[in-house]
Amino acid sequence: MRFPALDGSPLLRSLRAFQVYGANTNVGKTIVSTLLCKALLRRESEKNQGVWYLKPVSTGAGVDADDRHVTKYAHGVNAKCLWQFKEPISPHLAAPQTPQHSDEALLSQLHKHIAGIKQSGTLVVETAGGVHSPTPSGTSQADFYRPLRLPIVLIADSALGGISSSISAFESLHIRGYDVERVVIFSNSTYRNDGYLGPYFERHGVPTTVLPSPPSQHESPAEDASAMSEYYESTAASLSPAIADLESRHASRIAELESMPARAAETIWYPFTQHAEISPATIQAIDSAHGDFFQVYSPAAKSAKSAEKQEEVLRQKFDGSASWWTQGLGHANPDLTLAAAYAAGRYGHVMFPGSIHAPALTLAEMLLKNLGNERLERVFYSDNGSTGVEVALKMALRASRLRYGWGANDDLGILGLKGAYHGDTIGAMDCADPGVYNEEVEWYSGRGHWFDFPKVAMKDGVWKVTMPEEMGGGETEFASLSEVFDVEGREAGSLGEMYAKYIRARLEQLVKFEGRKFGAVMIEPVVLGAGGMLFADPLFQRTLVNVVRSSADLFPAAASEPTGSPTWSGLPIIVDEVFTGLYRLGRITSSSFLGINADISIHAKLLTGGLLPLCVTLSSDSIFRDFLDESKTKALLHGHSYTAHAVGCNVAKTSVETMLAMDAGDAWRAAKKDWKRSGEETGAAWSTWRHSFITEVSRFSQVEGVFALGSVLAITLKDNTTGYTSTAAAGLLKKLKVEGVDARTLGNVLYVLASLTTKEEAVRGLEELLVRGLGEV
Amino acid sequence: MRFPALDGSPLLRSLRAFQVYGANTNVGKTIVSTLLCKALLRRESEKNQGVWYLKPVSTGAGVDADDRHVTKYAHGVNAKCLWQFKEPISPHLAAPQTPQHSDEALLSQLHKHIAGIKQSGTLVVETAGGVHSPTPSGTSQADFYRPLRLPIVLIADSALGGISSSISAFESLHIRGYDVERVVIFSNSTYRNDGYLGPYFERHGVPTTVLPSPPSQHESPAEDASAMSEYYESTAASLSPAIADLESRHASRIAELESMPARAAETIWYPFTQHAEISPATIQAIDSAHGDFFQVYSPAAKSAKSAEKQEEVLRQKFDGSASWWTQGLGHANPDLTLAAAYAAGRYGHVMFPGSIHAPALTLAEMLLKNLGNERLERVFYSDNGSTGVEVALKMALRASRLRYGWGANDDLGILGLKGAYHGDTIGAMDCADPGVYNEEVEWYSGRGHWFDFPKVAMKDGVWKVTMPEEMGGGETEFASLSEVFDVEGREAGSLGEMYAKYIRARLEQLVKFEGRKFGAVMIEPVVLGAGGMLFADPLFQRTLVNVVRSSADLFPAAASEPTGSPTWSGLPIIVDEVFTGLYRLGRITSSSFLGINADISIHAKLLTGGLLPLCVTLSSDSIFRDFLDESKTKALLHGHSYTAHAVGCNVAKTSVETMLAMDAGDAWRAAKKDWKRSGEETGAAWSTWRHSFITEVSRFSQVEGVFALGSVLAITLKDNTTGYTSTAAAGLLKKLKVEGVDARTLGNVLYVLASLTTKEEAVRGLEELLVRGLGEV
Repeated sequence: MRFPALDGSPLLRSLRAFQVYGANTNVGKTIVSTLLCKALLRRESEKNQGVWYLKPVSTGAGVDADDRHVTKYAHGVNAKCLWQFKEPISPHLAAPQTPQHSDEALLSQLHKHIAGIKQSGTLVVETAGGVHSPTPSGTSQADFYRPLRLPIVLIADSALGGISSSISAFESLHIRGYDVERVVIFSNSTYRNDGYLGPYFERHGVPTTVLPSPPSQHESPAEDASAMSEYYESTAASLSPAIADLESRHASRIAELESMPARAAETIWYPFTQHAEISPATIQAIDSAHGDFFQVYSPAAKSAKSAEKQEEVLRQKFDGSASWWTQGLGHANPDLTLAAAYAAGRYGHVMFPGSIHAPALTLAEMLLKNLGNERLERVFYSDNGSTGVEVALKMALRASRLRYGWGANDDLGILGLKGAYHGDTIGAMDCADPGVYNEEVEWYSGRGHWFDFPKVAMKDGVWKVTMPEEMGGGETEFASLSEVFDVEGREAGSLGEMYAKYIRARLEQLVKFEGRKFGAVMIEPVVLGAGGMLFADPLFQRTLVNVVRSSADLFPAAASEPTGSPTWSGLPIIVDEVFTGLYRLGRITSSSFLGINADISIHAKLLTGGLLPLCVTLSSDSIFRDFLDESKTKALLHGHSYTAHAVGCNVAKTSVETMLAMDAGDAWRAAKKDWKRSGEETGAAWSTWRHSFITEVSRFSQVEGVFALGSVLAITLKDNTTGYTSTAAAGLLKKLKVEGVDARTLGNVLYVLASLTTKEEAVRGLEELLVRGLGEV
Repeated sequence: MRFPALDGSPLLRSLRAFQVYGANTNVGKTIVSTLLCKALLRRESEKNQGVWYLKPVSTGAGVDADDRHVTKYAHGVNAKCLWQFKEPISPHLAAPQTPQHSDEALLSQLHKHIAGIKQSGTLVVETAGGVHSPTPSGTSQADFYRPLRLPIVLIADSALGGISSSISAFESLHIRGYDVERVVIFSNSTYRNDGYLGPYFERHGVPTTVLPSPPSQHESPAEDASAMSEYYESTAASLSPAIADLESRHASRIAELESMPARAAETIWYPFTQHAEISPATIQAIDSAHGDFFQVYSPAAKSAKSAEKQEEVLRQKFDGSASWWTQGLGHANPDLTLAAAYAAGRYGHVMFPGSIHAPALTLAEMLLKNLGNERLERVFYSDNGSTGVEVALKMALRASRLRYGWGANDDLGILGLKGAYHGDTIGAMDCADPGVYNEEVEWYSGRGHWFDFPKVAMKDGVWKVTMPEEMGGGETEFASLSEVFDVEGREAGSLGEMYAKYIRARLEQLVKFEGRKFGAVMIEPVVLGAGGMLFADPLFQRTLVNVVRSSADLFPAAASEPTGSPTWSGLPIIVDEVFTGLYRLGRITSSSFLGINADISIHAKLLTGGLLPLCVTLSSDSIFRDFLDESKTKALLHGHSYTAHAVGCNVAKTSVETMLAMDAGDAWRAAKKDWKRSGEETGAAWSTWRHSFITEVSRFSQVEGVFALGSVLAITLKDNTTGYTSTAAAGLLKKLKVEGVDARTLGNVLYVLASLTTKEEAVRGLEELLVRGLGEV
């Protein structure tokens, strides 16, 4: 069976399907469709193959209906209209607004119809109106049909003004990731649009067919029919080269997909990948993506399903790692595409130092205003989490160095947690403790001290905090996850006191007795991602911050403290929210779970909604002022060529706006309600994964623990080894992959991430799969 | 005076200009323009201001001409048509194809017309046909008018199919960076497009005005005129709110631009910037960019030009640093926008490890095929030059460590040149010698040895190679730059022999006597950019590579050398072509000037034509194989979330294709010819800056030396200090800025970079300015 979500892009080996779009209404879509069917019938009959015509939605019923027209003039075609509405107006006005006429219903019928075609041949799907004409629900057709991403035959407009409408229609399709494979236009000796459009589309790799214009309408229906019949008879052959080309493009597309894994295996050096473990057979060719789903080339389908199905070439896969934790607002989100294209069209990239442009300024102001941390007053742009960490590091080290009178070459470390991960550039690597990620990397040298820490997970239906051995081991139970997150309430409790004492003692040991120097605290709030999806007790992280801040006695000020009074005490606190921030855990910041205001904060990944690399490092004004000097060499000498590139900033602006609106609205109301335990006013912690599902998973004997927060789910399986090199969760992972879920593992942890817009039915489907899978491993 | 290139975007304080576009032809552009003028006349007359109507291009002349229509029904308007063609067909067919009807001529007349309006008021510019209808030269209107970027009033289509054509027209404008500020549509009770489009455009921040539909045409001209007249009288008032809103948007746009520098000064932390030196007065607000030009908010214009001009708010500035050396194919290049949007629409970003998508694969194959270095067989993607350098470093250090049996913690250095710069992440910084860029940076520690080297420049009309002091000083003269670049011919000469001996001796000293370990050679071929635009003698760099390669005796192999035979000897050679590659110096690779094939090559900046961050690190298969192992921890553990993001790869693919086509075509023929000295078959080195200009500059007494290669020009001015902290070139820089050239300095070096598509007239204009400026400083 397959992942129980909507079907994807129907690319079949022996059924060629394409979609006819018009540059405008009334440009001759049905006439061209009829000609295509007619020409196809001649061609296919030679090969004993079928021709199907489908009009999903039609308005203006009766004898003039498009499917009847096609049937009448292209004998032998299997023509069908799914939904026919009488009034000759836009479907969103002609159709009743009922669930039966929803987009979901239409898409489902469409998939059913295509799946029902068992014979080889060609399917022509004719759209209604122009490219953006609405569906019965009011969605733009171009957006609605996008998950199918059928190759397109675009009927250009041969009338006056048709050059413009044809190009605009093409652009609307192109920016949605459609492949227009053929343009068809009627000749018109007055306007000669074909003379302009032919070369135009040629430059975009699209060939054009020019057809004689159809006869003008006769008054007598009989004469009209006879003229049309004659026209179709004499003209159909003109489309034969186009059909041969479409057929060859269909074959090329499949051949290309088939060849891609082997070619990739020869040319690509994959990030974070042991190439000895991969081969053409393990590399997946992604044809496209939409929402939460990839369309992946599926060599397996070739053999297994050939009997019952049309040998599907593509298989839909759930993007279960949210594309390395970046995905937020759905793949191929048209709002983000438009935001990117607008900025590209208005600016391209414009150099940033000393300049300002609206997307960078607006985004910076939006973040400062909404992140809820008054300390943060400055925004520094870079390209990704790793560079953002290096920027944060340079900021913090300078601030503490100046304050404590250290030299630039002094051996300054950072304070962090064991299992930290902050990126792969050397400076960011040096912020993480030694481990499998870095032990083989030349030039790595962990610079700092990393605390082991208590971890949170549910086991056997109970939320537990487990102490590490160096803190004496042992478990503490909690009635709910929100209780765990009541960090202020817990602070005065026994764990809170124990944490504070423990941390203070370690600090004294490190600073007073070992004489070590530290320049910053750097933590990933709540969840340490790449280090193994470790769910930290938020109270421990909060306490670490507070103890450092109240331990100014351990960091004696230099004789010449810099002017101005720093707003930080002890050490600057850096929160690396690259993975955890911007609603990944359900809140705009993950440090808000700790109830602390950091001095420096790093955000990337979800910042652009999952489209493009961009990072911001925010800092307090106090730290910013440490870099003011007469000498340029004392500035923060860090910069990337594409700093604050307008495209990324504008996409991020749109993404953050969208996420803020979701947060302010009802987007996650059901999830919040589901996680609210009786007696709680509002749950501090919630997830799009159901609480009952987490509880069920936690009871499996092979599960060591499970947690979920926001869109993150992590299941730790029992294993005799731990850490990155473990392969414990491989069995479960394999089962998920078979079902079409592209999840990932980190050692014995299997995690699945949803995006912020994953439909509830998809999450429920994943839950079912996981429970079934756990029952079988 | 101003930079003598085409004028930019006419944003004036007291003349509001906007442009009327139609979603299609025949949607009522002229009727709405007439109504706008009429409503404006009422409004403006109260304020004693004028109303202008301009139809740049019109077809279908006679009494029906649009400007006549407007004049007839909106008494008092200053109406004008620039070019009128008789036939009622597209301008590209109606106009004679002569230079007088070129785009340049039209743009020039347009600017002249606008500049000629001395009174306050409003200008309505009506386009012809639909948004993409061609100009007389055949350019899409939307592209042609883009440098002006006037705010847009879009007339939507109220007919059947008009929802689609209106949205597509909007998208075509939006992705070109236009601001559509108002939609106007005629009501139509059958199709009710306004009911759909109003909320649609509202979501995009654009308000809609619905107007009663105009009377249908009467047979009698007199009745028709009277009906129209009545319609205009009764309807004009409906547009008053729209006009008030457009006026307020005009004021807001200016107020926003005015406020941006101060807001940026409060929120932004600029890269590589000493904030003590900047203030709201020094920050430039960039409204948009096009081709080589920024449109910059110009507070100066407010006072200085108010008497003669309409108080221009924006000033056009030449992007003289090619936006930190990234710009190649022009800002806001529509081909790159479409490439970005297509990939965003097809994929968004899809995770890369273990997967492949067409843009990443195609780009990788294209680079491997065209870079002309057979050693390179693998492509690793990252986000920018700095991360690409870190990747290269990890590759090379591992290869040499395995071969020579060193440990991961051994102190391995790199061999490079003095003044090197490879990026701002700590690992990349550590590849550069100590200097002003890094002396204050915590965690920096230069790891390697850096050779001082002979430099090339023209002085007093003669190309010279100057030895550094540690090589004994002295100069050698050359007849031409191509002679300098004849590195194979020069190898056996006295300099070649001297270089080889010198380098070998230093290596022996470092390795044999000091016992130092080196893991790689890393150089920026030909030009060391950020280090101060240092033009290295290519023979010296070539010799460094060749001596290291032939000094295998200094690097004894480990007992257990890895399996497989490495294709490198001595040390892996890394070329950092981030700045110099991909035609910045006129060739696809800058290492080809050295006549060497590197083992690892890094490319970024121009890779995406100047739009988006993306980097590739290419390596030999031999080095790739050093990472194959049973253990995942021995893989190249480097990766960024957005590795090989589809948008960047697709933009890069389009950019590289475009650059390859330019190279194969005649794009730089004139420049190549200009630099060919008599007797030379083909010049090895050429520049878009003329040889005669370089010669002239080299003769100024205050010029220490000058060089140009590809699109790079660098003038070193005499100064008593050198290096980054110098301010010698400030005088010349200031002069250029006054003239509208946004050039940059590095210490006493002033450099100007053109893009790959800079028009010859712009380069000539810059040359004139520079010569004049040098005469005055």
